[in-house]
Amino acid sequence: MKIYKKAILPLGFKASGVSSGIKRSGKLDLALFYSDLPAKSSCKFTTNAIQAAPIKICQQYLQNNEDYRAIIVNSGNANCFNGKTGLRDARQTTEILAKYLGMKREGVLVASTGIIGRRLPILKIKKAIPGLIKALSVKGINQAKLAILTTDKSAKETSVKFMLGKHPVTICGVAKGAGMIAPNMATMLAFIVSDACITQEALDRALGVAVDNSFNCITVDGCMSTNDTVIALANGAAQNHLINTDRDFAIFSRVMGIVCLELAKMIVRDAEGATKFIQIQVSGAKSIARAKKIALAIANSNLFKTAVYGQNPNFGRIVAAIGSSGVKVKENDLKIKVGSLKRKDIKVEVSINRGNSKVTVYTSDLTPEYIKINAGYN
Amino acid sequence: MKIYKKAILPLGFKASGVSSGIKRSGKLDLALFYSDLPAKSSCKFTTNAIQAAPIKICQQYLQNNEDYRAIIVNSGNANCFNGKTGLRDARQTTEILAKYLGMKREGVLVASTGIIGRRLPILKIKKAIPGLIKALSVKGINQAKLAILTTDKSAKETSVKFMLGKHPVTICGVAKGAGMIAPNMATMLAFIVSDACITQEALDRALGVAVDNSFNCITVDGCMSTNDTVIALANGAAQNHLINTDRDFAIFSRVMGIVCLELAKMIVRDAEGATKFIQIQVSGAKSIARAKKIALAIANSNLFKTAVYGQNPNFGRIVAAIGSSGVKVKENDLKIKVGSLKRKDIKVEVSINRGNSKVTVYTSDLTPEYIKINAGYN
Repeated sequence: MKIYKKAILPLGFKASGVSSGIKRSGKLDLALFYSDLPAKSSCKFTTNAIQAAPIKICQQYLQNNEDYRAIIVNSGNANCFNGKTGLRDARQTTEILAKYLGMKREGVLVASTGIIGRRLPILKIKKAIPGLIKALSVKGINQAKLAILTTDKSAKETSVKFMLGKHPVTICGVAKGAGMIAPNMATMLAFIVSDACITQEALDRALGVAVDNSFNCITVDGCMSTNDTVIALANGAAQNHLINTDRDFAIFSRVMGIVCLELAKMIVRDAEGATKFIQIQVSGAKSIARAKKIALAIANSNLFKTAVYGQNPNFGRIVAAIGSSGVKVKENDLKIKVGSLKRKDIKVEVSINRGNSKVTVYTSDLTPEYIKINAGYN
Repeated sequence: MKIYKKAILPLGFKASGVSSGIKRSGKLDLALFYSDLPAKSSCKFTTNAIQAAPIKICQQYLQNNEDYRAIIVNSGNANCFNGKTGLRDARQTTEILAKYLGMKREGVLVASTGIIGRRLPILKIKKAIPGLIKALSVKGINQAKLAILTTDKSAKETSVKFMLGKHPVTICGVAKGAGMIAPNMATMLAFIVSDACITQEALDRALGVAVDNSFNCITVDGCMSTNDTVIALANGAAQNHLINTDRDFAIFSRVMGIVCLELAKMIVRDAEGATKFIQIQVSGAKSIARAKKIALAIANSNLFKTAVYGQNPNFGRIVAAIGSSGVKVKENDLKIKVGSLKRKDIKVEVSINRGNSKVTVYTSDLTPEYIKINAGYN
């Protein structure tokens, strides 16, 4: 297995990114991921009760289809809270693209990120689509990975090459997100493509576990976006034996876990205003869910996050956060270990002595810079 | 009914505040509230799983007793996370005081606020108690209200005088709290004394409703303290008819609500670093609990709070916070109205069109000053 810090598309995939004019800055804002072969797809969406229009469209398309070819993504506009117009615009985006590609609209998945509550400039997208298709290439991933960004300081990308039997397989992921913390912006997006030959059920299972241990284990400000989306495509071009043994599934699942965790950590490291990368490990819980509840209670505590920023060791704030999590803990059972706050990477270890479950979550500190950026007068 | 912005002790109460040396600054740090007559008591404590030692002692004393005379409070040390030693110190504090006052220890309630995890300097308290008792007077409330403070910029105090039948009755409250946001400090404390003659059950009911609509409706940083405590004493000195009719209870309950809400608002106004006082009203919910969940989700959203600080109207952040609350809402049913962000007092009105329940919560904005203060390098 080899891990790359850059996006390398698997066999049978192309990508592109162009500037359609949604972003006034003229930066890249429209991305396309394309598979030559019909691909299986697995998706994870925000659990926010208010979901952006593209998520609703994806959910419709994921009902009765096994042939996905494309993901179209725009940045600069979230297409959220736009009512029926928003749904129509998202659907139309897929229809226009599908028409040009000579396929049915249900094979096109769609995602948006940016300002909430403003209408998607569908005409600009329509105009840009021919150029977007024309630009498709293996190297086009380097534009696509930029076109999905909003206030990110840098692209998030990783690829892992590994063997399934005698067949080299690749999983490649790109992501976007600076912690749902940019002015008027919100969202974590991740797109993962693989040439693995895998069943729908196995892909769903692998992505589910990977997302739970990665994107669901990071928090910057505890704010949940209306647009969070993870889409995985697997097109089988690697020609490995269909993943259905425990061994092959374990390998694929492990790699999927690595790809998601790497991308998730990159999002935390890019959190706006952050000066620290904080790893919080909670062990000795009765279940993973309880361990995570405690870890997230600490990770989302403004008091804890400011103490880390100030390099001011304050275990009382960790104690208070643990107690507020809703999970039963006893004062005498708590063990808390905090690494040096002077370093950029900080580890907090909490043991609660009630069971054997363990979890790690990742977060950043809370800084005056975060506030300046999000107050919008930067 | 007359509302005063200052603490005026009801009949039969005295108070005092001294400097015992717990605070190195030499500021007042030990307070005593005393009733000449046996008083009924009702208490509300933090729901944090980690509770400070004085809370555990109060809970023991509240089991089988109907004769409370005193509340002793120290600031500068939370006596929390101190194990058995902490319990012994809190118990001893009540025992020493009870001995001097010639009463049983169960009649003394106790509260602490300050640094977590450091041993309570019980010898300093022991030494200061005779002077604390000697200083008891009606005007002593003006020292007591200061001795309970930590990083508060000002004292929180209010009194209401009203009639029950032909008898003038007073409810007086003092509180402490700058939003659980001071370095190494945590806690909201409130002490409410009344000369009303009331049954235990009615006092509990009135305090419960009042706290739910006041202290449980404010949030500064979403951090829940290990020491939060509200203690009410009612000694009957007003000689009103024992409150047992609907009418008398309604009056008493209404006044108790005013006292608690005034104190709660003062805490929000004093939130460290705050530049805005934000009122969030959620209506049209199926239940009060759901309305509150939504209102608190907005109030605790760092994105929303920084937007208010930046006077940057951003209703997308409110939408995202509403959707993340866990309460079912429909995009098309949401109505959001935000007052001018240029003013110091801001009102946010949300209607979700699912029922008739309504709630108002209070919060402050999130500012760079909050971070500076809590990073501890100020």
